[in-house]
This record gives sequence, C-alpha cells and structure tokens, in this order.
Amino acid sequence: MTIFSKIIAGEIPSYKIAENELFFAFLDIFPLREGHVLVIPKIETDKFFDLPAEYLGGMLVFAQPIAKAIEKSFACDRVGLEVIGLEVPHAHLHLIPINESNDLNFVQPKLKLSAERLKEIQELIVSNL
Amino acid sequence: MTIFSKIIAGEIPSYKIAENELFFAFLDIFPLREGHVLVIPKIETDKFFDLPAEYLGGMLVFAQPIAKAIEKSFACDRVGLEVIGLEVPHAHLHLIPINESNDLNFVQPKLKLSAERLKEIQELIVSNL
Repeated sequence: MTIFSKIIAGEIPSYKIAENELFFAFLDIFPLREGHVLVIPKIETDKFFDLPAEYLGGMLVFAQPIAKAIEKSFACDRVGLEVIGLEVPHAHLHLIPINESNDLNFVQPKLKLSAERLKEIQELIVSNL
Repeated sequence: MTIFSKIIAGEIPSYKIAENELFFAFLDIFPLREGHVLVIPKIETDKFFDLPAEYLGGMLVFAQPIAKAIEKSFACDRVGLEVIGLEVPHAHLHLIPINESNDLNFVQPKLKLSAERLKEIQELIVSNL
C-alpha cells in the first residue's frame, strides 16, 4: 500500500481539500509554495500515463475548481501543474500557485510550514472552493 | 492570433507529432530535453484552468499515446508533464522525458538543436505512436 493510499484511507492524516469517487486532493506538507496541493487517483498506478482513460479523462476536470480556489487564495499570476513522479510510486499531480517559472522548480528547497499554517491554508482553499 | 494558433493553421511551420479535432501536438523548438513536446488546444485560452471541460477532459487522453511514444523513443525513466503558461497566452502542456526532477526545471538553459536533429526526433516519436 503506497503512502498515498494510506492517506486516502485515512490511516495517515492529511489536510484534505476535496475528493470524489476517483480522486483525492490534499496539501503537500513539503510545499514549494503556500497553496501547493496534490491530486491523486484512488488507484495505485506508478506512472501517470499508465492511468486508465477514465482517470486521465477526469483528473483535470476534478482539479479545475481546486486550481481556481488556490488562485483565489494566494497572490499569484495563475496555478501551474506538474507531474514528475520519481519518488512515490502512485501517480500524482502537483497544483502550485505561480508568479514565475522558478515556482515550479522542484530542485530548490521546500518550505517548512507549521501545522497551524497548513491548517489555515487548508481552510482558506476550502473556503474558496 | 497567438503564435500557437498560427502553428495550428500551418502559417508557421512546426514539427508536428499528432492532432485531432480538439488538440495539436508538436516539438518544442527550445526544448529542455530531446523529445520535449507541446500539446495545445485548438482554441485560444490564456489560462490552462480556464479551458472548457471538454478540453480539460480530453487533453490527457490525447496526450497519453504521445507520452508513451516519447518514453519509447528516449532513454528515460518516464514522461513528465508541466503547465506553466507565463509566456504564450495560449494554454499549453509540456511533455518531457525525464530521469530526474531537474529535467523539468524551466529555469535552466534550453537545448539548441539543429533543424536536422528536430526532424529526426519528430520522425522517431511519430514512428513509435
């Protein structure tokens, strides 16, 4: 069972943003920027483009209102999207509010946010959904 | 008319990979890596998450066989995906063969490839489609 499946199952706590039958969205606790959200499918597929068509077809539609809520919640030009997938073998999509290309640069150090701040960010995004 | 609409219309030549009624895919001529492909919708929408649901629902399904063909064509762990969108006001998705996070880092210098090499890459990816 991947760490993401444990999050979906509630065995590992998360700052949940939204879910439906196919997908689950929650805060990345090692964010590049405040408002960094992960969207994951509720099946364990390592490579993103190995996801069944049903998931590939639904993922961006599921992500759209979340991206809009992130955009409303933070000072940013828009919300960027990235799929890398070299660490956790469970396909996932990063949604990150950006003002410049470097805001999507995963080579730089991550932010260290307190549990209180993460909770505030969760509530802010959910309030804008 | 955006530069991407001119590419779709054939007014600006491109190294085309695939197209259907809604989308067009072609080589990025300022690639981060060999095999870097752009997927664009055939409508002019600046922000990716402002695309109509029909486009958000179809884009990853359209991109899937292209991503698989890129993965087959180049030595890589998988194909990554990125949407930034700060330069051309026409939503677009980058598909890039990756071995490490830095392969999706848009802050680094782009490759300079000859027209001959781009043509070879186009033919290689299309042959694996």
